[in-house]
Amino acid sequence: MAVSQKKAKEPAQKPGKRPDGPTIAHPQADAGDDTDITALGLKPAQLSPEMNAYFKKCEEKLGFVPNVLAAYAFDNAKLEAFVAMYNDLMLAPCGLSKLEREMIAVAVSSQNRCYYCLTAHGAAVRSLSGDPVLGELMAMNYRAARLSKRQRAMLDFAVKLTAQPWEIEEEDRERLRRVGFTDRDIWDISAVAGFFNMSNRVASATDMRPNPVYHRQAR
Amino acid sequence: MAVSQKKAKEPAQKPGKRPDGPTIAHPQADAGDDTDITALGLKPAQLSPEMNAYFKKCEEKLGFVPNVLAAYAFDNAKLEAFVAMYNDLMLAPCGLSKLEREMIAVAVSSQNRCYYCLTAHGAAVRSLSGDPVLGELMAMNYRAARLSKRQRAMLDFAVKLTAQPWEIEEEDRERLRRVGFTDRDIWDISAVAGFFNMSNRVASATDMRPNPVYHRQAR
Amino acid sequence: MAVSQKKAKEPAQKPGKRPDGPTIAHPQADAGDDTDITALGLKPAQLSPEMNAYFKKCEEKLGFVPNVLAAYAFDNAKLEAFVAMYNDLMLAPCGLSKLEREMIAVAVSSQNRCYYCLTAHGAAVRSLSGDPVLGELMAMNYRAARLSKRQRAMLDFAVKLTAQPWEIEEEDRERLRRVGFTDRDIWDISAVAGFFNMSNRVASATDMRPNPVYHRQAR
Amino acid sequence: MAVSQKKAKEPAQKPGKRPDGPTIAHPQADAGDDTDITALGLKPAQLSPEMNAYFKKCEEKLGFVPNVLAAYAFDNAKLEAFVAMYNDLMLAPCGLSKLEREMIAVAVSSQNRCYYCLTAHGAAVRSLSGDPVLGELMAMNYRAARLSKRQRAMLDFAVKLTAQPWEIEEEDRERLRRVGFTDRDIWDISAVAGFFNMSNRVASATDMRPNPVYHRQAR
Amino acid sequence: MAVSQKKAKEPAQKPGKRPDGPTIAHPQADAGDDTDITALGLKPAQLSPEMNAYFKKCEEKLGFVPNVLAAYAFDNAKLEAFVAMYNDLMLAPCGLSKLEREMIAVAVSSQNRCYYCLTAHGAAVRSLSGDPVLGELMAMNYRAARLSKRQRAMLDFAVKLTAQPWEIEEEDRERLRRVGFTDRDIWDISAVAGFFNMSNRVASATDMRPNPVYHRQAR
Amino acid sequence: MAVSQKKAKEPAQKPGKRPDGPTIAHPQADAGDDTDITALGLKPAQLSPEMNAYFKKCEEKLGFVPNVLAAYAFDNAKLEAFVAMYNDLMLAPCGLSKLEREMIAVAVSSQNRCYYCLTAHGAAVRSLSGDPVLGELMAMNYRAARLSKRQRAMLDFAVKLTAQPWEIEEEDRERLRRVGFTDRDIWDISAVAGFFNMSNRVASATDMRPNPVYHRQAR
Repeated sequence: MAVSQKKAKEPAQKPGKRPDGPTIAHPQADAGDDTDITALGLKPAQLSPEMNAYFKKCEEKLGFVPNVLAAYAFDNAKLEAFVAMYNDLMLAPCGLSKLEREMIAVAVSSQNRCYYCLTAHGAAVRSLSGDPVLGELMAMNYRAARLSKRQRAMLDFAVKLTAQPWEIEEEDRERLRRVGFTDRDIWDISAVAGFFNMSNRVASATDMRPNPVYHRQAR
Repeated sequence: MAVSQKKAKEPAQKPGKRPDGPTIAHPQADAGDDTDITALGLKPAQLSPEMNAYFKKCEEKLGFVPNVLAAYAFDNAKLEAFVAMYNDLMLAPCGLSKLEREMIAVAVSSQNRCYYCLTAHGAAVRSLSGDPVLGELMAMNYRAARLSKRQRAMLDFAVKLTAQPWEIEEEDRERLRRVGFTDRDIWDISAVAGFFNMSNRVASATDMRPNPVYHRQAR
Repeated sequence: MAVSQKKAKEPAQKPGKRPDGPTIAHPQADAGDDTDITALGLKPAQLSPEMNAYFKKCEEKLGFVPNVLAAYAFDNAKLEAFVAMYNDLMLAPCGLSKLEREMIAVAVSSQNRCYYCLTAHGAAVRSLSGDPVLGELMAMNYRAARLSKRQRAMLDFAVKLTAQPWEIEEEDRERLRRVGFTDRDIWDISAVAGFFNMSNRVASATDMRPNPVYHRQAR
Repeated sequence: MAVSQKKAKEPAQKPGKRPDGPTIAHPQADAGDDTDITALGLKPAQLSPEMNAYFKKCEEKLGFVPNVLAAYAFDNAKLEAFVAMYNDLMLAPCGLSKLEREMIAVAVSSQNRCYYCLTAHGAAVRSLSGDPVLGELMAMNYRAARLSKRQRAMLDFAVKLTAQPWEIEEEDRERLRRVGFTDRDIWDISAVAGFFNMSNRVASATDMRPNPVYHRQAR
Repeated sequence: MAVSQKKAKEPAQKPGKRPDGPTIAHPQADAGDDTDITALGLKPAQLSPEMNAYFKKCEEKLGFVPNVLAAYAFDNAKLEAFVAMYNDLMLAPCGLSKLEREMIAVAVSSQNRCYYCLTAHGAAVRSLSGDPVLGELMAMNYRAARLSKRQRAMLDFAVKLTAQPWEIEEEDRERLRRVGFTDRDIWDISAVAGFFNMSNRVASATDMRPNPVYHRQAR
Repeated sequence: MAVSQKKAKEPAQKPGKRPDGPTIAHPQADAGDDTDITALGLKPAQLSPEMNAYFKKCEEKLGFVPNVLAAYAFDNAKLEAFVAMYNDLMLAPCGLSKLEREMIAVAVSSQNRCYYCLTAHGAAVRSLSGDPVLGELMAMNYRAARLSKRQRAMLDFAVKLTAQPWEIEEEDRERLRRVGFTDRDIWDISAVAGFFNMSNRVASATDMRPNPVYHRQAR
């Protein structure tokens, strides 16, 4: 069962045969990955039917369950709360495109040097943009990218909010409005940047490892 | 209606008479507060029955709706996701006491110099501990507090995770285990610290203002 | 005797009966405080008549001797020099109001995260302004306060001078002149900010503890 | 008259002939210096007989009045308070040698990159030690100096107190005790470091210029 | 001729037909790259036979001339000095493997967030190690990599030397010796880290763009 | 023999009589210096005739071999590469005067607090400018110097490139162009700043000690 975090410490199991947990077929798309998902020894919980269905959907659409979900799967309530917030922020209709939201995710994760999120969301930027170099630029130094004024202002705000949140003031919000963002957009930029400041820290605190498959995606 | 964020920009309304929004009786316990809840002009959304009930419960138990909830109330889905994650983290059964979780909230918010969270959660530390000075110490410099080794290690981890998340390693987790925290506790410390790194940034990005009532609580 | 710094290491004494030191009646207004004033084991010195009179005046006017004075009282010359400089800076006629000087004190102490000064001078801002929230704002993040341009420029200068003194240049002084400060005012802003950069460090270096009474003042 | 701060803005005066100010013969030992003492246009005050005598003593012993004193001379009370505190800290009997106190002054001023204090107190370290290189090392990077364990611990404490005062704890004080410092010495190290954190900022805030003569002293 | 830095500002040329410069066939392996090599408008110099031969060798072995060489090619002496130092450091026999030297290059470039060097040397780590993930780890956060004690100590030294060179002391060198490095190895670690602190800054200062081909190498 | 780095660990040798190394007469102009040149125990290499000639020329022109050259002399190829790059950058014809290049060297070394380079290149600024105070200003805080707009912009760029290379953008280059620098000058400013970011780190990593003679030069 992929959702166990410290595999090495657990007895070997054959895929699909774990008796006391949810039955999720092959969540480990990355069979070559023999590291644990996190440094914490947390046992997978019995997942709700909704979460089991969600994991299955991940496998069907992505070919694997993202390790961050497997990591949260030690507690169904936490997993549900994380999934609800994540999906609303990153996938719901919004004045920011999905690519823009992923660009924020990566620029924030670069500021925080988060291995998990840089890997997983760097792949998302490459996929959504069809531009592998853009993903690298977001991960390495967004200031080196040739961006529209809108996207540059968006990332400047997100990265300042990450590094010196106490210095954000009306002037910073005005800068976003001047390039066309609405107040609702400002909320969304802030919420996405805020969310990855959370996720980066949960990932770093637990030494969360990305699914190896991300590394090869959309290069 | 308290959930409107920029009151000044909206036509004056008599409490309880707003026709196009949800009916929430008197969420503004702090009548003396004439500032907006945030700097963003976002209109309150039609809330779900669950969220309306939740706001009512806040008023009954606390005497007011915390402004962070009013701020999120421009979008019911976002409000629900926030409430679900918040309540799971801060109120669900856990190896950390509610006070300890609030201590993390305030120490993290102090690192990020977040006015909203220092005010609201500083009050919570004072209330839960019955020790007004402890709230001040968490907000000013947790290192000056006389803490148990357990609580000191917990806050050292949370504040390092806030300031230099990229430098957290196994040694830091081991330090928590040595003072008695389980791997599940380490997750919870990380998740609470992570959550306030998100909330601090949403609050700072939007200039969220705390309900004035917090300032006088449990002094 | 209040001026002893590490009470715990000294033999118990009945108030007013200490034979080998100066006789100061009840300087410990905060009887409930069983912590030492500092972490250093320094014996109170024989104070000069002027300093004894000054301590008495403190008790009469404030109801207690501020612990910073008790901390300096191990050496009469140091106490006198501190009192002379402090009183000139904070109480003498000046282009800055007493409240403005205290606002600088707290904003600087917030930058330096000094528990003693945030507590004692936060109380002073609350008292002098009659605005408890202003004290909290100065201690938490002065940028979140709604200030006049004059006061905002004053605090921006004081906090930059605290954090990056090497980057203060004519342009910074010009910014103060543009909002109406004279060159004499610029000296005073600098001198008050400088003084608390000293006091913050003496307090932090010695683990100086504020009189508990401050916490409840002017809430 | 040396005590005027912005000479350029004032009418030219012949030394010793200034009618409306104190009569101080030739405080400008550095005749070649045509810059102002500070960037502030503050007129010299009528000095008290004690301060006039003190300035004369400076000229007799040093050959000049240090510019910091000339800078404070716009206000006799401020000058007296500064002189009293300075002389007590740097010249009174103390567990630290005068050289050690000057070493702290320079190491702190290096951290704060203060041109005035590095120049004036760098000269003092060279003079007191008879070791010109020691002065350079204190100004450039005290960590590169070959110091006794005692002096290294002293400077480590002073520089940490300068850069991160909020992180000073009992462990730091214990480190000083272990190399032989008494609690009184810890106070003095802290007070000297604190004092230069003040002076550095007053000097930087006012663009105070050192007497040129310092540059050539004790090379 | 590939060595022109701001192509856009120069008249279009057919490859191999540039009359006034050295004849280098097709140095632009990355034909799809329509950006300039740097932000500076510097004309390619007449290269020495040795440098022309070296560029040809690059094309034969790599399939392209690395843009950093094209950038330096505005001045033959500077190009020769750069090539000599680079080749000695990165390719000459040494106690560090070529992979280890490239690991230092990338970890240093990550600290400095240098887009050019992260791209070019990230590719080198992937190629030399045959481990694409190792390249990502070096670029994102070397602390997340599972390294031998030797390599971890090597990178800790290189990154500390990058971020706080003034804090490197004998203790840091001892840490390298304890994991088996000789004094000559310490020189080499320092020299490679130093070199990339130079190159990162030349690249960032001139907005140097990596050859696009690097992005796809050894994934 | 001056090129040995850790003299103390090597058998005593009479000057000029070292059998297994190059014969360099008296490279130690500073006979009073009994410290090692670096903290590394590296034996001097057999130098090429060109390097031997270069060392002799140093002695003739300067009266001594700069310790940085002696430090590199453990390996002839590294010494040659260093000398070639150094001489091209600092001595070749260039839009920046030799003094300006040395000013960059010292301002960068001040940012990095490098004892070796501050000492050696501080002396160069004093010598080339004939203004001892300018050397001190560059070493202590270049912002306190009265500079032309050109030189101030040059040093602002060099120091920003040193401290936050990832934040250098077109706007920074434009600032240089506006005060008259050509694109070639921008390269040179960057290359000199970059070079000292390398040298500072090699010197700090190896505890390189400057020839004592520098301290007294051009005071």
